[in-house]
Amino acid sequence: MTYDCSFLSDLDLDGEVSFDDSARESHAADWVAQEAGLGVTPDAVVWPASTADVATVLEAANDREVPVTPYAAGTSMEGNAVPLFKGISLDMTKMDDVLDVRPDDFQIDVEPGVMGNVVDETAAEHGMFFPPMPSSANLSTIGGMIVNDASGQKTVKYGEVGDWVLELEVVLADGTVIETGSKAVKTSSGYNLKDVIVGSEGTLGVVTRATLELEGLPEQIKGGRAVFESMDDAAEAVFDVVRSGVDVAKIELIDPLAAEMANRYFDTGLPDGSMIFFEFHANHNVDEEIDFFRTIVDSHDVAEFEIADEERMDELWRARDELAFAVQQYDPDLEPRHPGDVTVPISRYPDIIRYAKDLGEEHDVLLPCFGHAGDGNVHYTVLVDPDDEEMVETAEEIYDSIVEKAISWGGTATGEHGIGMGKQKFLELEHGEGGVQAMRALKAAFDPKDILNPGKMFPETEAEGGRVELPSGVRSAERD
Amino acid sequence: MTYDCSFLSDLDLDGEVSFDDSARESHAADWVAQEAGLGVTPDAVVWPASTADVATVLEAANDREVPVTPYAAGTSMEGNAVPLFKGISLDMTKMDDVLDVRPDDFQIDVEPGVMGNVVDETAAEHGMFFPPMPSSANLSTIGGMIVNDASGQKTVKYGEVGDWVLELEVVLADGTVIETGSKAVKTSSGYNLKDVIVGSEGTLGVVTRATLELEGLPEQIKGGRAVFESMDDAAEAVFDVVRSGVDVAKIELIDPLAAEMANRYFDTGLPDGSMIFFEFHANHNVDEEIDFFRTIVDSHDVAEFEIADEERMDELWRARDELAFAVQQYDPDLEPRHPGDVTVPISRYPDIIRYAKDLGEEHDVLLPCFGHAGDGNVHYTVLVDPDDEEMVETAEEIYDSIVEKAISWGGTATGEHGIGMGKQKFLELEHGEGGVQAMRALKAAFDPKDILNPGKMFPETEAEGGRVELPSGVRSAERD
Repeated sequence: MTYDCSFLSDLDLDGEVSFDDSARESHAADWVAQEAGLGVTPDAVVWPASTADVATVLEAANDREVPVTPYAAGTSMEGNAVPLFKGISLDMTKMDDVLDVRPDDFQIDVEPGVMGNVVDETAAEHGMFFPPMPSSANLSTIGGMIVNDASGQKTVKYGEVGDWVLELEVVLADGTVIETGSKAVKTSSGYNLKDVIVGSEGTLGVVTRATLELEGLPEQIKGGRAVFESMDDAAEAVFDVVRSGVDVAKIELIDPLAAEMANRYFDTGLPDGSMIFFEFHANHNVDEEIDFFRTIVDSHDVAEFEIADEERMDELWRARDELAFAVQQYDPDLEPRHPGDVTVPISRYPDIIRYAKDLGEEHDVLLPCFGHAGDGNVHYTVLVDPDDEEMVETAEEIYDSIVEKAISWGGTATGEHGIGMGKQKFLELEHGEGGVQAMRALKAAFDPKDILNPGKMFPETEAEGGRVELPSGVRSAERD
Repeated sequence: MTYDCSFLSDLDLDGEVSFDDSARESHAADWVAQEAGLGVTPDAVVWPASTADVATVLEAANDREVPVTPYAAGTSMEGNAVPLFKGISLDMTKMDDVLDVRPDDFQIDVEPGVMGNVVDETAAEHGMFFPPMPSSANLSTIGGMIVNDASGQKTVKYGEVGDWVLELEVVLADGTVIETGSKAVKTSSGYNLKDVIVGSEGTLGVVTRATLELEGLPEQIKGGRAVFESMDDAAEAVFDVVRSGVDVAKIELIDPLAAEMANRYFDTGLPDGSMIFFEFHANHNVDEEIDFFRTIVDSHDVAEFEIADEERMDELWRARDELAFAVQQYDPDLEPRHPGDVTVPISRYPDIIRYAKDLGEEHDVLLPCFGHAGDGNVHYTVLVDPDDEEMVETAEEIYDSIVEKAISWGGTATGEHGIGMGKQKFLELEHGEGGVQAMRALKAAFDPKDILNPGKMFPETEAEGGRVELPSGVRSAERD
């Protein structure tokens, strides 16, 4: 089904509207959907220039029951920004101003289309930084990070993106503009709608302004790398570090296969082993903490322990930061299936790593693992020959098994990428029938006509009721 | 209007039901309503013994449209637990088990009726503590803290109660039991219902189990006190400390009037001056941070600076911890009106303190101020002769002016006590018409028959529609 979006031309907007094929096609997919050759071309693209524009478009679309799917950098990982039911792709990237910086309050006000690295650069001018920034700072907008409740390498010390959002301006489905949260650092006033918009993937409202909290840059940053005899040793060391309360700012795990992929992609000369990368932040002498950390790490089977200077650290971390690309580029004949991002309580971290690696070995597939280990997070993927149906099916099964195991251990299907289309099938397993019903009730209260990013978040089977059928070619994006 | 609650006797409950006058009367008010001689006697009291009991009671009450108001320690500050429309008071204090402690994951599972000090004592056995604990730990239940999103003296370093809640089991109005959140430390899975239940004051569901995150006890704790020549100096020093990024774990402000009240109540010998109390937590040598702190403090007009040993600190902090009682007991002929807890961005802290003190002087009333200064929080109250109508009216006006000023500066009407009945009139000023409408939509989605703690949160004028009129004597509790 196609929606008649010609009404957009009659709206009084400061921003732009396009019905061109090239504009529409460039908004058909996000990063992962693009790679998989999947996508749905919207009927129109709107680049709003202001909150008023967003309100005008939503009000008009809501009146006409036309779907609106917010879009920004298009780097989401679960098809979150794919306009599954066509209609309007609402591209927020022109609303990319830094509106205000208040260093005395550690606050910055930004529009949603501001890129992550711009926030960090602006903050750095005032001696500050945005602690939960994802590794993809220069590929992602703040708006995208907020509505996916993203997180990053420093989350182990500082928390998720949502923990650093103080106030949001949001346009609801009917065009109502609300402000939620407070510029005070704490509030008990009214329902906490702010934290419901965070992580709602554009299904409840469109973020048009955010007040973020910043932190002073640490006076000392030191990091390094430890290589272990086995993945078991590496994962156990991570668990031991975290349960000992070591104040680590980053602790990342990389398995030998992911290291090999990084080496091939970057020629970074990572050793052939299971390794952790780590970083410490402090305003006091950080060496004492690193000594304590080393004592714990040394109680496991360590082959190599290195404290790196800043230049070397940049080189080391580059390998980690762009690992996702390295995996993608590893072999032109193989493609990675579904970027996993399960997260478990830290005591289960060695178990989930072992479980994933064992499954890979058992089925003789390439299954690189890495991730924000200190949070209990694992990124994993299975590389498959897309023409080998049996292999593709095996990869699906492995992927599912790891998610199901994580949930059974009190963990979550997604630590940072959101539900989108790819993880809908786990929603009820994780939250129960009642939990999903409550989420549906919330959705219905905020967006009764289901115009905002329809078909996302909730399992399709029930969400479909009364709505148009899915465009052909997209069912496979939902991995049925 | 009275509700026929005899159906409760027919339910299959492990807990208890009472229709006795003494039981009902003891559930008519919370701490502040009690002091003000206001309250509404419920028709029945139920002490559930299990989640199943809560579900059974809610399902039956929902079928019959009988109001249910959760109750626990009864120490809320805004009439939050007053059963305004009668019906059932659901007393959660029998569900007071610590269910599990998982030191390796820094997690504790508790029932909602567990007192705060029990959580801290249990955590301490494992070398841990619950960082956002309010000063009233031994007077408040964890459930009450969660649904008011309470906070405490250590919030300046560690955040609010809600920041330390990982997972909640909640019974919804119709008896559906849901789990929300995750035992993983981060998740992007589905809508964040957990943080909507936090701070919802029993109006959206009843918390029946909570998984809280704990923190390792700091190896070093040091604190002290600084006395300034004026309140301006004290408040400016607080601002200066916070904006300099000093890692302070507590920083509390007390004005000379509050100090005098503490002295009369406790004979604590506090000096006649404007003072701050502070505490530092660290696992490294804390003295360097304290030296830095002192440099900042010394740039203001300091009359006295003291670093206290542990015994002396206990004595000092006792004066702060029980200041609310001291204010209440100060003069038998005067009663404190409304415990204010506005919170502003830290850059506005000196302004809000000055504004409050000036108003007190201008109207020649006793207006003691104290609070969690590092968060930008002020507790204030006006002492009035309740028979002096003009004085009472002036006190109302002062109270309102301070809240309105805080909101105009980007702050909040309530940092930690919630809306209850007392702050309903500021809800729209703070959140706008659209914001309050969105909150009402959420309430209607979760509790369509408005049985859960009805009459709270939202301004009475609109909430009333179709419902019974307020019991006589309670309008005054709403300060019309």
